[in-house]
Amino acid sequence: MQGNMMPVPLTIPFILERARTIFRNREVVSLLPGGRNQQGQPVPQRHTTTYGEVADRALRLAAALQGLELTPGDRIATLAVNSFRHLEAYLGVPSAGFVLHTMNIRLHPDQVAWILNHAGDRVLLIENVFVSMIPALQAACPTLEKIYVLGDLPEPMPGVESYDEWIMSHTPLERYPDIDENDAAGLCYTSGTTGNPKGVLYSHRSNVLHSMACAPKDALNVGERDTVLPIVPMFHVNAWGLPYTCTMYGARQIFAGMFTDGRTIAQILQDEKVTIAAGVPTIWLGLQNELDCARTAGTPYDLSRLERLIVGGSAAPEALLRGFQSHGLHMTQAWGMTETHPVATVSFLPPDIDPTSDEGFALRAKQGRIVPLIELELISEEGELVPHDGKTMGRLLVRGPWVANQYFRGEGQGSFLELGGQQWFDTGDIATLDERGYMHIQDRSKDLIKSGGEWISSVDLENAMMAHPAVAQCAVIAMDDPKWDERPLAIVVPKAGHSVTHEQLLEFITPKFAKWWLPDATVLTDHLPIGATGKILKRELRQEYRGYGSGQFPQRNDLT
Amino acid sequence: MQGNMMPVPLTIPFILERARTIFRNREVVSLLPGGRNQQGQPVPQRHTTTYGEVADRALRLAAALQGLELTPGDRIATLAVNSFRHLEAYLGVPSAGFVLHTMNIRLHPDQVAWILNHAGDRVLLIENVFVSMIPALQAACPTLEKIYVLGDLPEPMPGVESYDEWIMSHTPLERYPDIDENDAAGLCYTSGTTGNPKGVLYSHRSNVLHSMACAPKDALNVGERDTVLPIVPMFHVNAWGLPYTCTMYGARQIFAGMFTDGRTIAQILQDEKVTIAAGVPTIWLGLQNELDCARTAGTPYDLSRLERLIVGGSAAPEALLRGFQSHGLHMTQAWGMTETHPVATVSFLPPDIDPTSDEGFALRAKQGRIVPLIELELISEEGELVPHDGKTMGRLLVRGPWVANQYFRGEGQGSFLELGGQQWFDTGDIATLDERGYMHIQDRSKDLIKSGGEWISSVDLENAMMAHPAVAQCAVIAMDDPKWDERPLAIVVPKAGHSVTHEQLLEFITPKFAKWWLPDATVLTDHLPIGATGKILKRELRQEYRGYGSGQFPQRNDLT
Repeated sequence: MQGNMMPVPLTIPFILERARTIFRNREVVSLLPGGRNQQGQPVPQRHTTTYGEVADRALRLAAALQGLELTPGDRIATLAVNSFRHLEAYLGVPSAGFVLHTMNIRLHPDQVAWILNHAGDRVLLIENVFVSMIPALQAACPTLEKIYVLGDLPEPMPGVESYDEWIMSHTPLERYPDIDENDAAGLCYTSGTTGNPKGVLYSHRSNVLHSMACAPKDALNVGERDTVLPIVPMFHVNAWGLPYTCTMYGARQIFAGMFTDGRTIAQILQDEKVTIAAGVPTIWLGLQNELDCARTAGTPYDLSRLERLIVGGSAAPEALLRGFQSHGLHMTQAWGMTETHPVATVSFLPPDIDPTSDEGFALRAKQGRIVPLIELELISEEGELVPHDGKTMGRLLVRGPWVANQYFRGEGQGSFLELGGQQWFDTGDIATLDERGYMHIQDRSKDLIKSGGEWISSVDLENAMMAHPAVAQCAVIAMDDPKWDERPLAIVVPKAGHSVTHEQLLEFITPKFAKWWLPDATVLTDHLPIGATGKILKRELRQEYRGYGSGQFPQRNDLT
Repeated sequence: MQGNMMPVPLTIPFILERARTIFRNREVVSLLPGGRNQQGQPVPQRHTTTYGEVADRALRLAAALQGLELTPGDRIATLAVNSFRHLEAYLGVPSAGFVLHTMNIRLHPDQVAWILNHAGDRVLLIENVFVSMIPALQAACPTLEKIYVLGDLPEPMPGVESYDEWIMSHTPLERYPDIDENDAAGLCYTSGTTGNPKGVLYSHRSNVLHSMACAPKDALNVGERDTVLPIVPMFHVNAWGLPYTCTMYGARQIFAGMFTDGRTIAQILQDEKVTIAAGVPTIWLGLQNELDCARTAGTPYDLSRLERLIVGGSAAPEALLRGFQSHGLHMTQAWGMTETHPVATVSFLPPDIDPTSDEGFALRAKQGRIVPLIELELISEEGELVPHDGKTMGRLLVRGPWVANQYFRGEGQGSFLELGGQQWFDTGDIATLDERGYMHIQDRSKDLIKSGGEWISSVDLENAMMAHPAVAQCAVIAMDDPKWDERPLAIVVPKAGHSVTHEQLLEFITPKFAKWWLPDATVLTDHLPIGATGKILKRELRQEYRGYGSGQFPQRNDLT
């Protein structure tokens, strides 16, 4: 027997309508590039608008798109930084019945073209700072029919129009098309550290449910009184859904665009009275450094309004959480993937645990507990369920209404498996789950070090070494070993003006690990290779260093 | 084109599983009847359990129900107060594939039997304090096959078993049945002040979405660190969904059972360190009186942990909000109906308004703004859309994924109408909507006073008169008038030891109203008739007083 409830679909127009009506006076701030300074670096120019204006322009964009000869479900690509225009695309493209395809601006133009062609994008909205890519894309992408430039168009280009002029020549859409809640709304490609990038196709329903799941205080704690700075880019997993969550709940949004260095971020957090900010560990390391310097200089920033820093994208070491706590700032860890929209777990604490106690920090350094409607499981290499005892590692599986059930165009089938009659996504992570539900990622399965048939977590070792006062960055990888198959090797970037030896590092981390977990050697270097989404490219490190222990390692001038 | 997201249904087992796993140690407290005092009144006995225990017993209940010869979708009725056992039924009955039908314990046994038969209930879970009703129900309800008593069974009764013994003789359900998210999960009958009660059939999907919509801080602000006291009964619109919302987010729940007088509530709020409590204005008037007395006596309660009082069910006068503010307590108004699950609007304030300013109180005295996924409209008597200008009154229509699209067994078709190609529920309320989305209920359409072709809001007049220091309760109704058709009549219960005249009341409220809105007369009385859900029965008052102005009014000894 079915219930007698209205079959109202969960669609993005509900979010747009809240911006257009009850939150229409709420502010949206963007830092746009406003010329260059003497060093040739872009200078931020503060732009303010309101949700009402954004909604009006999003509806003009929707009408403009409907004026093109497109088919519902066609992909509209963006190559854009965080700004109010990108937010207009978030709201307007799906509300017109099309799919918003956000592309990573840090990729090589060849990769951009590959993804554009794979997605079959028919329209591209491109930030004016990237116009130099246009001719190559036009040449390489036959499905791409229309290109609109966000911001001032520096000079006329063939086949390229101004986004602002285009949308403002249309009146706002008066009636939304019929949208099924399972219709596609967004497309985002995984960073693709192995193989070609794979597309994750979000639905209206998944976007709406994810937005609702993120708002409560035990998730991201978003409300109308908040000012939210999503430093995480809008081209990467929808900036963790924050543009949608913030619009649904009327939070003031600050878009920092291309300005994400520690000093600019600190200044924005202070000047805009930000209450919630979200970013990857790399961003927060930069901020922490800036805050430390300012404190040392006796001119600390006033961040008294800042209630929560959200960290995700890769594991946040406990030292990072403690470092921010020393500034009175609370950092909350969240975990997810492009395939999970991304928020699946948040490291919120039960009421009996003090967040600033040792136990509190230890729990907050885990990836956290599931938000409603998400399920996690662990399986062994044999595919058997593994106990949730906080110790036994297993491959992490995830399931939920905002988790992918396949990749775009059916690729990557091996990542989806059936268990107990239900479909699960295999994250490729190795994790533990404890009795209270805390999930702790031990490693990417490909980054695990398999020593004598046992697993060693590179992430655990890295986090422990990161707490050493002389370590700026650190990666632990497997090197080949004739006896144990693989052994851990630490690759460390010391802090400026510091040095550290292998023995000092071992002495520092020995109390925390079994002896056989300890790295056999440490290499000092001046930088680690970083990929387009800000993660360390361990694949490259492994290629370079896998023969280190056998003496096959090529000579190089290590820093000492 | 559809998105590639898992088709995971939104079902109540997700809520149960969170209780069973990540929140299993969180406490659930019930005040059970523990004998009687010298005056013959029941005395509360504090019972504590955990979500883990509740989940275990809910799964035993689910298995026990599956052991009966029932069909999926069959209705399981409860006649119960707020307690952990009722929570077990909330979780276990729908998770077993059946429909939880919560019945109002304040109805006459004949009405209970009528509703039982209309619902076709096959199983009844009944609180032990109501066992005297059982023989009459057995005689009147042929579909009712099984009766289980919650709590100690005073003496053996034919065809009646102990709920505890029944469920504990089963092992917990190991695998949930396949449940579609649109399957029926709950059934609740409207209070039926006009005509027969009508059933609203909630679905799994509507319960899950409503729970998610209620949690954020701009709604009810529920999280794991909260202790929530739903004074609103679990037999009435699912206690505003709080048992589900609290379980989904792990909030500690306090069930006061039958103990809802001001003193007991004040004591519970203090002793249990409650952070959120929810109830109707009548309950809060009792509490405010108790707090006032305690303060006057120099022994105020310590309610420092209490963050939010949620008021709904009928309009909260501004005087009530101000009264609690004088105790440092923040009251938030929410609005909804049985047909809307109930939460549709919450009176949260934009960030530029101080909640304790005059404007803040005025806005908080309105019913508020829509939570995500709910839509409101206003139509005139001619069925035309009415402007959202904060002044023009119209019939309030509501729409959303947790709003009824019909009543059980297809009754009350006149309450559902089509507008712009979409189905809406006609609330029967007359309201305004302002530019920022604040909805303000002016009256039930049947309670509006139609004077000379214009509408006068009885609710507005009542709220203004309630602020007079001598007024305890007040109702304004229409009396017949030969010239104006109808004119307002005030019926007032003075506070103990106080008196007030019509002229004093007029002088008090005149600054707030147009002259033609002012009541023509005031009747003082010692009580107002109250219905089973705590609302004033204006229908009875109208029958008694409609001829007052024409001198046809029967003589009575009014208090002076």
